[in-house]
Amino acid sequence: MTELDAVLFANEAFYRAFADRDAGAMAEVWADDLPLSCIHPGWGLLEGRDEVLQSWEAILGNPDSPAIGCLAAKAHLRGEMAYVHCFEEIDGNYLIATNIFVHEGKRWRLVHHQAGPTAEDPPLETKDEGGLIN
Amino acid sequence: MTELDAVLFANEAFYRAFADRDAGAMAEVWADDLPLSCIHPGWGLLEGRDEVLQSWEAILGNPDSPAIGCLAAKAHLRGEMAYVHCFEEIDGNYLIATNIFVHEGKRWRLVHHQAGPTAEDPPLETKDEGGLIN
Repeated sequence: MTELDAVLFANEAFYRAFADRDAGAMAEVWADDLPLSCIHPGWGLLEGRDEVLQSWEAILGNPDSPAIGCLAAKAHLRGEMAYVHCFEEIDGNYLIATNIFVHEGKRWRLVHHQAGPTAEDPPLETKDEGGLIN
Repeated sequence: MTELDAVLFANEAFYRAFADRDAGAMAEVWADDLPLSCIHPGWGLLEGRDEVLQSWEAILGNPDSPAIGCLAAKAHLRGEMAYVHCFEEIDGNYLIATNIFVHEGKRWRLVHHQAGPTAEDPPLETKDEGGLIN
């Protein structure tokens, strides 16, 4: 697995935890010992592991939360930091997101997430992609 | 100037170019030879230097574009990639943004920007901050 594949794998793990409403898996996705921040659609800034994970527990614990999928993820990395932009499909509507990962221990861990509304659909070519920034 | 100060300086240069409606300065802020992407509030994904800078030329060239300011910027960096989250003040309303920078040549250059709506005001403590991710 290339490092870019590993970043896309970490991004997939984030959306799998989201789709499965698995708060334990979500806690694994986010970094343990790095500064964390999260911007849910329309929300303000959440900071710190406790505040960020509590927001996810509330979202994942809500039985009315809609299903979610990730489309057209593209990763870019330089050294031990990487980012992914992708579309999120929620009940046939789309959001657009930025996810930032940092290498912590031997894994890519999420440190920042921002999702917001988008007026556009994802591109028809939705295969995940990535590029090294050298 | 520390590297974190340099990242915050690059972030300020972005908002200064925006506030001054200076397309030339905006073109200097964005990286020359790296993959670029930009998500304006509510828009889809723009990719590549041409597409991204054309969008900025349209925004900066619009005489009805509102004034903009940047508040509560906080930077995090690991090696040669860094990100800033901040609030944007536009006509008394706020957006919230993620800006990602990569070291290109001897400068921090913008490679990705996402801004979206937020229901919250920025924190009263609006001094710029930053932290090394080690």
